[in-house]
Amino acid sequence: MTGADVYLKAENLQKTGSFKVRGAFNKMIGLKGKVIAASMGNHAQAVSFAAGVLGIQSKIVMPLTAPMVKEEAAKGYGASVISLGESFREALDYALDQKDFTFIHAFDDEDIIAGQGTVGMEIVEELSDIDYIMVPVGGGGLISGIAAAVKELSLKTKVVGVQSEAAPSAFHSLKEGRIIEMTPEATIADGIAIGKIGQKTFDVMKKYVEDILLVNEGSIAMAILNFLERKKLVVEGAGAVALAALFANRERFAGRKIVLVISGGNIDFTLIDRIILKGLMKSKRIGIIEVILKDMPGTLNKITEIIAVHRGNILNVYHDRLMGALPIGETRVFLTLEIRGEGHLEEIVVDIKSQGFSVKARG
Amino acid sequence: MTGADVYLKAENLQKTGSFKVRGAFNKMIGLKGKVIAASMGNHAQAVSFAAGVLGIQSKIVMPLTAPMVKEEAAKGYGASVISLGESFREALDYALDQKDFTFIHAFDDEDIIAGQGTVGMEIVEELSDIDYIMVPVGGGGLISGIAAAVKELSLKTKVVGVQSEAAPSAFHSLKEGRIIEMTPEATIADGIAIGKIGQKTFDVMKKYVEDILLVNEGSIAMAILNFLERKKLVVEGAGAVALAALFANRERFAGRKIVLVISGGNIDFTLIDRIILKGLMKSKRIGIIEVILKDMPGTLNKITEIIAVHRGNILNVYHDRLMGALPIGETRVFLTLEIRGEGHLEEIVVDIKSQGFSVKARG
Repeated sequence: MTGADVYLKAENLQKTGSFKVRGAFNKMIGLKGKVIAASMGNHAQAVSFAAGVLGIQSKIVMPLTAPMVKEEAAKGYGASVISLGESFREALDYALDQKDFTFIHAFDDEDIIAGQGTVGMEIVEELSDIDYIMVPVGGGGLISGIAAAVKELSLKTKVVGVQSEAAPSAFHSLKEGRIIEMTPEATIADGIAIGKIGQKTFDVMKKYVEDILLVNEGSIAMAILNFLERKKLVVEGAGAVALAALFANRERFAGRKIVLVISGGNIDFTLIDRIILKGLMKSKRIGIIEVILKDMPGTLNKITEIIAVHRGNILNVYHDRLMGALPIGETRVFLTLEIRGEGHLEEIVVDIKSQGFSVKARG
Repeated sequence: MTGADVYLKAENLQKTGSFKVRGAFNKMIGLKGKVIAASMGNHAQAVSFAAGVLGIQSKIVMPLTAPMVKEEAAKGYGASVISLGESFREALDYALDQKDFTFIHAFDDEDIIAGQGTVGMEIVEELSDIDYIMVPVGGGGLISGIAAAVKELSLKTKVVGVQSEAAPSAFHSLKEGRIIEMTPEATIADGIAIGKIGQKTFDVMKKYVEDILLVNEGSIAMAILNFLERKKLVVEGAGAVALAALFANRERFAGRKIVLVISGGNIDFTLIDRIILKGLMKSKRIGIIEVILKDMPGTLNKITEIIAVHRGNILNVYHDRLMGALPIGETRVFLTLEIRGEGHLEEIVVDIKSQGFSVKARG
């Protein structure tokens, strides 16, 4: 499918569902006293889990907007969770203020970076002659650790970062040679939606990272779907960006030996239906057509008959009589169809049109 | 979570996404000429894939009702697919009639059974002192192979089958000592929805299988969700029944060393949202409440305010003004909520009721 020789480093199968435990353990081992972290994601679970194993007391501060499932997960590993503030910034400030706790940064810390670097060590221990390692980038902890480790052990291997277009802080920072802060937009890859990479991670990345690639939301959704369907693996948005980048840059990587780092698998299952739908639409397995019909007996039947002839499978029918400027007596109908690729949808649309209906395919 | 020492045999990660390739290869290796099979599921992909690798021409017959994705998958591996007949029976009869093809049975064949038996060999090669191996049962090919292999190699290990309540042919057959045919009802575990186990598989099962357990649809959905969330593995309904049975029989298996056979991971992603929703509801992570409201400004706001106070997260609101006997001016509203377990939903319902609304929790 990609034209390359592809290997997966499946950190979604790691304890707590992401690579973050590596850094957390490396930071906290030997630590005395209590720890605190601010996170609404994988870092929270990692700190909580490592603290439990090491017998350390831990506190996690999350903004009130954090998903319930993340809060429950951290509690499940033994942390006490404080919900506080509307934004992540408020939660972070509160955590930084607790002077009787050791603050555990999510990425900009040498011990954390070194811990994440074990991912790189394991890759080069198991594989040789790797051309590229492609790594999701948020704050830069994972890629810094991997790049530093790999550059020591395997000279020819290039380390390439991948970010979501919605949160391209590392991309622009490396391009301009200074740290650029950017407010992240909403993205499926919420685990790497960081506004500002770290100073320490930036210094390592400048030295060792070859390039940073950007991917869009549709391609991330499609990569998640690919992992689910083809590899039977649950991969979160952040974890899927490397595959998305490989698909988007087939020519550059064709014939090369490539390791994709799947950073984690902690996806929110109350949202996954939307992600899958997006992936199915992007890969033209589901299509939506919009038809204007007279509100009278038999008209919908004509449409469903045409679809049946072409063996499209109708998944959903939605009537809209309110939106847009439609005369009374006409209704707009959206049909969601399971299809066999783009040509199939086009074929159905052409046939409906040829029978005198106003119809169009919807993205 | 289960109280037992649990190991997974992950045949969802097998080539073609299920154990079926084992039997197909064992049957077809050394075969001359063309092969034909009737299947709308994993057997189709297995025969098609094995034929491609072995350089044999293959034809798969599927009923017209087969999901599009299954048809595309078999074609993708190189088989020619014939869509024919409204029922599986018609497809099967057609396949059996093609005398110039070797018919490959999905389960009732010694070579197929022996091939599936390699699952059992691998389990006992890797683990010792296993108390139970729990195996999904459809036609009985997989469990027969495993039971025969394991009983040779590990005397103390008991092999237990699991079926869906919707398709309990093996359960009743073993109980009554003769093959019982039963028309399967609709089930998430479509891969084991077989009406009649085989004669050969029945003979092996009678000798070696300890017991057959039944599981219901809700528990299968919850097991699928557990695999997705906790193990980051995509497991199809049939593949998840062993875990469902373990949860349903905690006391029997507590403290025991148990291998769950995950038979496959080929789930239909146009349906997975419904499965996940069912799993989320069964595990009380999502709840639905039904409220009767006056159709006037501000009433819905009172409800959402109560829910906000209890920190329930509203996922969906659906107004119904047509169904049931409701006076004009009143509307029935269904609210889908993300919740923290059963007590949380109850708490919200009690509070809404105490403020004078007609409300109930929905399964």
